[in-house]
Amino acid sequence: MQPRITIIGLGVQDLKKSTAFYQEKFGWKLTSASNENISFFQLNGLLLSLYPKDKLAEDATVDPMGSGFKGFTLAYNTRTKEEVDEIFADLAQKGVKIVKQPEEVFWGGYSGYVADLDENLWEIAFNPFLELDEAGNVTNEA
Amino acid sequence: MQPRITIIGLGVQDLKKSTAFYQEKFGWKLTSASNENISFFQLNGLLLSLYPKDKLAEDATVDPMGSGFKGFTLAYNTRTKEEVDEIFADLAQKGVKIVKQPEEVFWGGYSGYVADLDENLWEIAFNPFLELDEAGNVTNEA
Repeated sequence: MQPRITIIGLGVQDLKKSTAFYQEKFGWKLTSASNENISFFQLNGLLLSLYPKDKLAEDATVDPMGSGFKGFTLAYNTRTKEEVDEIFADLAQKGVKIVKQPEEVFWGGYSGYVADLDENLWEIAFNPFLELDEAGNVTNEA
Repeated sequence: MQPRITIIGLGVQDLKKSTAFYQEKFGWKLTSASNENISFFQLNGLLLSLYPKDKLAEDATVDPMGSGFKGFTLAYNTRTKEEVDEIFADLAQKGVKIVKQPEEVFWGGYSGYVADLDENLWEIAFNPFLELDEAGNVTNEA
């Protein structure tokens, strides 16, 4: 298996509202393959998909019940520390739930967290040790 | 915000065992920034990180308790249907938990699921409508 991932699939309670969240708050655009049953956003070489949580569990043949911390986070890294503050100011103004205001963290970066409508946690962070190319791909060895 | 993601962070119960899982079962290599506290794998333009679940929750300042379905899946898409079967055969032989054997699915693809040691679900799928470049990046509009 090559070291890669094709799709991050998030199970959502309300597909319409969650799709609007990523469109309006993050400013991302739906791909043309999206329809009323599933939403796709083209990211850097992979897709983010939104799909009703029950149907996602059904597809994987697992019990859909689940609660509390989901045990994963998604990170959006910036090129400067200031950009983190700018994004938090923008998202807060748009009514996005701020989970943790950005602060200096022990590993030398500057990081905070927001949540989407299903409590999926997005870390918005500046990591001075991490190199990003123009498209936002991580280019060094972390 | 650009349409991109930098890191997928998985909260794990046992960092050593989970790191070995991705190394030995998936065949992925740790980056040099990895240490006894955190593991990084360089994927296609983003990183997969493994971090103790309690510490991940602490970093995001959320309650670490959680159970059941996590409400997300990660997908590894192949270039052929046969490749899905080959990966399942390889992973089964290596003792990886098979959640759903691959089968023809309604959207025209061929897909199954495996789980890592923390019940994170990986879909291994062939989607004839999805184009991948040499590095495994999704190049069309889904």
